[in-house]
Amino acid sequence: MFETRLRQAADATDTALDRLLSGETRPAEIARPPRLLDAMRYAALGPGKRIRPFLVIETARLFGHAGDAVVTVAAALECIHAYSLVHDDLPAMDDDDMRRGRPTVHIRYDEATAILAGDALLTLAFDAVAGIDAPAETRVALVMALAQAAGIGGMAGGQALDLDASEAPEIAAVETMQAMKTGALILFGVRAGALLGNAPAGPGARLDTFGRRLGLAFQIADDLIDATGNAAIAGKATAKDAERGKRTLVGLLGVAAARARLAATVEEAIAALDIFGAEADVLRDAARFIAAREA
Amino acid sequence: MFETRLRQAADATDTALDRLLSGETRPAEIARPPRLLDAMRYAALGPGKRIRPFLVIETARLFGHAGDAVVTVAAALECIHAYSLVHDDLPAMDDDDMRRGRPTVHIRYDEATAILAGDALLTLAFDAVAGIDAPAETRVALVMALAQAAGIGGMAGGQALDLDASEAPEIAAVETMQAMKTGALILFGVRAGALLGNAPAGPGARLDTFGRRLGLAFQIADDLIDATGNAAIAGKATAKDAERGKRTLVGLLGVAAARARLAATVEEAIAALDIFGAEADVLRDAARFIAAREA
Repeated sequence: MFETRLRQAADATDTALDRLLSGETRPAEIARPPRLLDAMRYAALGPGKRIRPFLVIETARLFGHAGDAVVTVAAALECIHAYSLVHDDLPAMDDDDMRRGRPTVHIRYDEATAILAGDALLTLAFDAVAGIDAPAETRVALVMALAQAAGIGGMAGGQALDLDASEAPEIAAVETMQAMKTGALILFGVRAGALLGNAPAGPGARLDTFGRRLGLAFQIADDLIDATGNAAIAGKATAKDAERGKRTLVGLLGVAAARARLAATVEEAIAALDIFGAEADVLRDAARFIAAREA
Repeated sequence: MFETRLRQAADATDTALDRLLSGETRPAEIARPPRLLDAMRYAALGPGKRIRPFLVIETARLFGHAGDAVVTVAAALECIHAYSLVHDDLPAMDDDDMRRGRPTVHIRYDEATAILAGDALLTLAFDAVAGIDAPAETRVALVMALAQAAGIGGMAGGQALDLDASEAPEIAAVETMQAMKTGALILFGVRAGALLGNAPAGPGARLDTFGRRLGLAFQIADDLIDATGNAAIAGKATAKDAERGKRTLVGLLGVAAARARLAATVEEAIAALDIFGAEADVLRDAARFIAAREA
């Protein structure tokens, strides 16, 4: 069931991304320069699992909520994720030439276009979320939550900490950095679904815990793929963290202990969902999938 | 009066920027990495006239509206403007070392920090606008207007067109590019003030015309400063447009005809305000100031 639902979420997200990028919903705009738009489409609509949109869609579904508004927020979250990859891959940042088995945006286009495509995807996400068919209070809450997840107190700040190798590599500091860099956007996915579904406070708090543990599990799994993975399966260069001196839990704990911590974190994520019944099985499976993935 | 009001708007904006950047309004955030925050402050709080915030504040005041919400939107607009300068100055874009008489962000810090500081300022703007004390419908309308002004159909798209020198330099194409690159954000300033002030449709339409003509005037004046100006007064390198083969109205029309068009555009801007009384004098003066400035 999980894989079917993941594929359905990805298809719905890609349809929404295609529509958002087409500009059909914004007829008053002067123009969308074709080359920049191409680069944005290349970044947002390339291969990918669409895990973050899946979390929005499946968390909202827990509360019986589905439809265009949910899928648009899912697509907006994917825009933020895509922008972050485009900018992280730039020569001045991680300097990656390949991503998901294809040339990165600055290689396929050029560096200026990559910077602008990232900027425009980030901006488009807020336009999309603010424009959904939902009560204005919900839209405002989603915009604020997304901005805080993506900004200096979240993803962008986490990337800055990751680039700053001056701090001593301590486990707590690495976990903080990763909670910001990767965790904040995954947590937003779960929170957005809860917001859209009008989740009561109790289940909302459980989902917050689920989202936090899931984000940490995701990052440990990602670091394990880098440390031990196959570049052909991963679709990008591996073994780059060690080469760059990046601080990861795998580097601090070793592979075996990191695997054990990953398994424990997945169990904690699943335990947070124990107030839900079988309707949350797809989220439980998502946690297991994230730990087991190879790419 | 105009200069006093401009200085008052700048002071209020800088106070709001300082508060937004401090993080005191977002206590739930995990952390704000100090070096990234420094770079954001350097970019947003450096010398500058704060013309765009002034437009928000003075347009809202036309309708008797003032206070924290107005100033916060003004500060958010300045965040967007500051981010655009940081990214435009990058080596892959305009490759400028100096801005407002100081080293640009990627020179003062480093390129990765400049990319992230721009990203985080852009993101912070949406957090700030969505968080103002105003009806949720107003906040949503402001977020959408800001995103559309800043995104692929506005400023980011205009910058992409400006970097693409492949098109023939025709006046209409240059005006479209400039309406997106510079005009959209200036128009947003005026529109935001009208939205915050609950402007009726008639005055709102006049202000839209004012904002459009003002944006065009601003860009012609900017191009004239580049073509004929003094680098010491301008605080940045001049004569760079011609050197880079950039398409400007000054390049297409010559200096004398560009000056005449600037004067006519300012008159059109002022004429759009003829339904207002003396309370709009400060906006009329702003149009004259924009045409006469040397930096």
